[in-house]
Amino acid sequence: MPFVAFINSLLLLGMGALMGFTALMFPATRFVFLEAALLTLTVGGCICFSTMNQRGGWNRLHSFLLTGSAWITAALAGALPLWLWDLSFIDAFFEAMSGITTTGSTVMSSLDDTERGILLWRALLQWIGGVGFIVAGIALLPIMRVGGMQLFQTESSEKGEKELASAARFASATIWVYLGLTFVCTLVYISGGMTEFEAIAHALTTVSTGGYSTSDSSFGLFESAYLQWMGTLFMLAGALPFAWYIRVLNRGVLRSEQVRALIVTLVAVILGLTVWRVLTGGTPVLETLRLVAFNVVSVVTTTGYATTDYTTWGPFAAAAFVCLTAMGGCTGSTSGGAKMMRWIVLLRSVNAQMKRIHAPHGIFSVRYEGRRVDDDVMSGVMTFFVFYGATILGLAIALGLFDLDMTTSLSGALTAVANVGPGIGEVIGPAGNFAALPDGAKWLLSFGMYAGRLEMLTVYVLLVPAFWREVT
Amino acid sequence: MPFVAFINSLLLLGMGALMGFTALMFPATRFVFLEAALLTLTVGGCICFSTMNQRGGWNRLHSFLLTGSAWITAALAGALPLWLWDLSFIDAFFEAMSGITTTGSTVMSSLDDTERGILLWRALLQWIGGVGFIVAGIALLPIMRVGGMQLFQTESSEKGEKELASAARFASATIWVYLGLTFVCTLVYISGGMTEFEAIAHALTTVSTGGYSTSDSSFGLFESAYLQWMGTLFMLAGALPFAWYIRVLNRGVLRSEQVRALIVTLVAVILGLTVWRVLTGGTPVLETLRLVAFNVVSVVTTTGYATTDYTTWGPFAAAAFVCLTAMGGCTGSTSGGAKMMRWIVLLRSVNAQMKRIHAPHGIFSVRYEGRRVDDDVMSGVMTFFVFYGATILGLAIALGLFDLDMTTSLSGALTAVANVGPGIGEVIGPAGNFAALPDGAKWLLSFGMYAGRLEMLTVYVLLVPAFWREVT
Ligand SMILES: [K+]
Ligand SMILES: [K+]
Repeated sequence: MPFVAFINSLLLLGMGALMGFTALMFPATRFVFLEAALLTLTVGGCICFSTMNQRGGWNRLHSFLLTGSAWITAALAGALPLWLWDLSFIDAFFEAMSGITTTGSTVMSSLDDTERGILLWRALLQWIGGVGFIVAGIALLPIMRVGGMQLFQTESSEKGEKELASAARFASATIWVYLGLTFVCTLVYISGGMTEFEAIAHALTTVSTGGYSTSDSSFGLFESAYLQWMGTLFMLAGALPFAWYIRVLNRGVLRSEQVRALIVTLVAVILGLTVWRVLTGGTPVLETLRLVAFNVVSVVTTTGYATTDYTTWGPFAAAAFVCLTAMGGCTGSTSGGAKMMRWIVLLRSVNAQMKRIHAPHGIFSVRYEGRRVDDDVMSGVMTFFVFYGATILGLAIALGLFDLDMTTSLSGALTAVANVGPGIGEVIGPAGNFAALPDGAKWLLSFGMYAGRLEMLTVYVLLVPAFWREVT
Repeated sequence: MPFVAFINSLLLLGMGALMGFTALMFPATRFVFLEAALLTLTVGGCICFSTMNQRGGWNRLHSFLLTGSAWITAALAGALPLWLWDLSFIDAFFEAMSGITTTGSTVMSSLDDTERGILLWRALLQWIGGVGFIVAGIALLPIMRVGGMQLFQTESSEKGEKELASAARFASATIWVYLGLTFVCTLVYISGGMTEFEAIAHALTTVSTGGYSTSDSSFGLFESAYLQWMGTLFMLAGALPFAWYIRVLNRGVLRSEQVRALIVTLVAVILGLTVWRVLTGGTPVLETLRLVAFNVVSVVTTTGYATTDYTTWGPFAAAAFVCLTAMGGCTGSTSGGAKMMRWIVLLRSVNAQMKRIHAPHGIFSVRYEGRRVDDDVMSGVMTFFVFYGATILGLAIALGLFDLDMTTSLSGALTAVANVGPGIGEVIGPAGNFAALPDGAKWLLSFGMYAGRLEMLTVYVLLVPAFWREVT
């Protein structure tokens, strides 16, 4: 337990330092960020000093406590400047949770006129949240056996000194790839005509598939075809497995079932929707392709930028976008949703079952990336989908208690749990905003984003009393 | 193959006889039913004579062909009188498919002024569809290994002479229970003040959890509290496993995990919604309890009667009813949806997975009705849920192509695939009707009802080319 508190205190110290940096850069909001930094650093420092020397034991259950608490700590610290600045507490908490979980649903409007310090802070929250999730996906989720992630449990997740060192090397390589992508993305955005501030803010939220923008028009502010195609590319980059980048860089091996499945699906959906739009709406082919590609990639990678209000494309497109919202990118990336690995395992298991109809006594094992998927992983994936569906439906019903209409409650629950950002409908659609929702709904959605980011199970394990008896 | 055609011809002959009976009873629609009977009996007779002596081989794959074709044959024959009478072909087919799958969505209005012959025919279709589904669930689905139904594969599904005889005895006992329930239900309805015709028509569609009524006000026409409570009771009776009745009658053993789970869930949901209604709406307790109980049991047993438009209870109730629509009664009953057995297996498997988090190397097997559930059944259940979800979502997207709003397409797809009947929203809600939908949407929904009734997999297997290569 003290070690969990110690790591949380490091997180607070890091975030306090970032607040200090923001204070230095933007005079208009200097006092807000200085105050927040002071408070965060003090609390972080106290916890750090009181826990740094009592290491205590460490077991698998502490991983749940660590992930579960880190996202709450970061959301609270992230909310602090927003609250001190101008927002109510729930609005600040919602905005920070939406940031740190890389969801990108926002309660703020008039973004174009908002202080730059605040805009950068929102973008930084998403960027930290993205890298935090990748590191958790490499270091913690596999040993926590959450949602079939034990599939990625390699020797490097075990306890030996040598393996720990190699895991640390791997994690730091990942962070370098993340930094590199963000840097290149910033340069590309500048070369396309964004101001430096816009480029940095959007690069931070593109690579993290977060989706916060500096304008109410979201990415639609940039009408350049070049910028929109580059945005599409870098959103996709944020949704690819970071372990895959490292393998490509180290060994030049491109092959990955997840990456292939994601790209094939995207190409099929984009072509299908483009043809449908051109045939029914008569819009120009290339412009339609660009619009469709950007918005489909944005939803599937769970980034949530919009360049147009695609919900005005009619009920068919709205229904298609709802389904895409649930999909998600690859595991081991910054993106949310159910993710490709799980869809692949699910579909292959269904396929094996179909074969068994023809040959009831045949043995059809499910393979993934060349290895046999064992029953434990299979039921982990199945459990993930059960919790995923149950969380979304339960949240939608609970939102109904606040008299939200069905489209808003269902798409709101879905977009929160899948960490996408925009919903469907007039209120929370890509052109809308979550500010108008009642406070209770904002608390519920904050919980949905939190549960979705931690792949449900992590949060639900914390709610079981038996866990707390065992963990101490 | 000839045997499959032979059984279908028997079905046609039986339905032709029922048309003849309806013609005799109701002079106003005599010629319609005589014409239909003549046509059906002629076609049925020809097929029967040409196939009765060529038995041919029989293998497991023929079961798919038999179930798949029987529901189409019955829907076509069932549509014939409706088409000859007054409806367009798609309306007649939709109505008959909705009948034979015991869905109960209707395109007909002014039911109170409709010829009784037509009303009885709709009720008879549901009654036949109900008993057909129970028999298929006992005799065919377990050997077809559809949706985990191999769980119910006992020696009686195997091929020995003695076992076939015992399966036949079991099926005939089931039919007697079904007849008995229908008879008692009719008497109870008469004793509560229904006319004989109303009582028979409603008993036929209560026990089959079909939900067709003789009035536009559905069961709401009968304001008697006694009748509404009895309706609640007999809808529940239709959703209990018919094998359970036989066990109770033979051996007096009441214990059944499915029955218990269904009743516990119903009590919890009914009490919860009643308390919420009383607290927020201030309605009288007993009347609210009756209204809630009737409508919840109606949706969960997938009957689909309504005594009130519960979608006017606000978004929370609407969301709750949408989720209840997906639930379903017990396997081996007439009801649709995912059914209790599968929810139980699903939840226990999730529970086992949660336990594995605490003890990664422990073995936690899933048990059902005292027996261990093997992996084959588990993945059958998982496959069911995948196809269930995919069919509903795919159908909802396809309905979007006809410019239906999201509530209508989603709840329409759900209510069709779960064989419930009413959807949510102004168009297809409990107070509405499917007549206004475009023809394409009606075809899609007919397919949804068909796929849902045959537990998806049966239909999808027929769509795989490899099946047709193997079956001949
Ligand atoms: K996002
Ligand atoms: K029904």
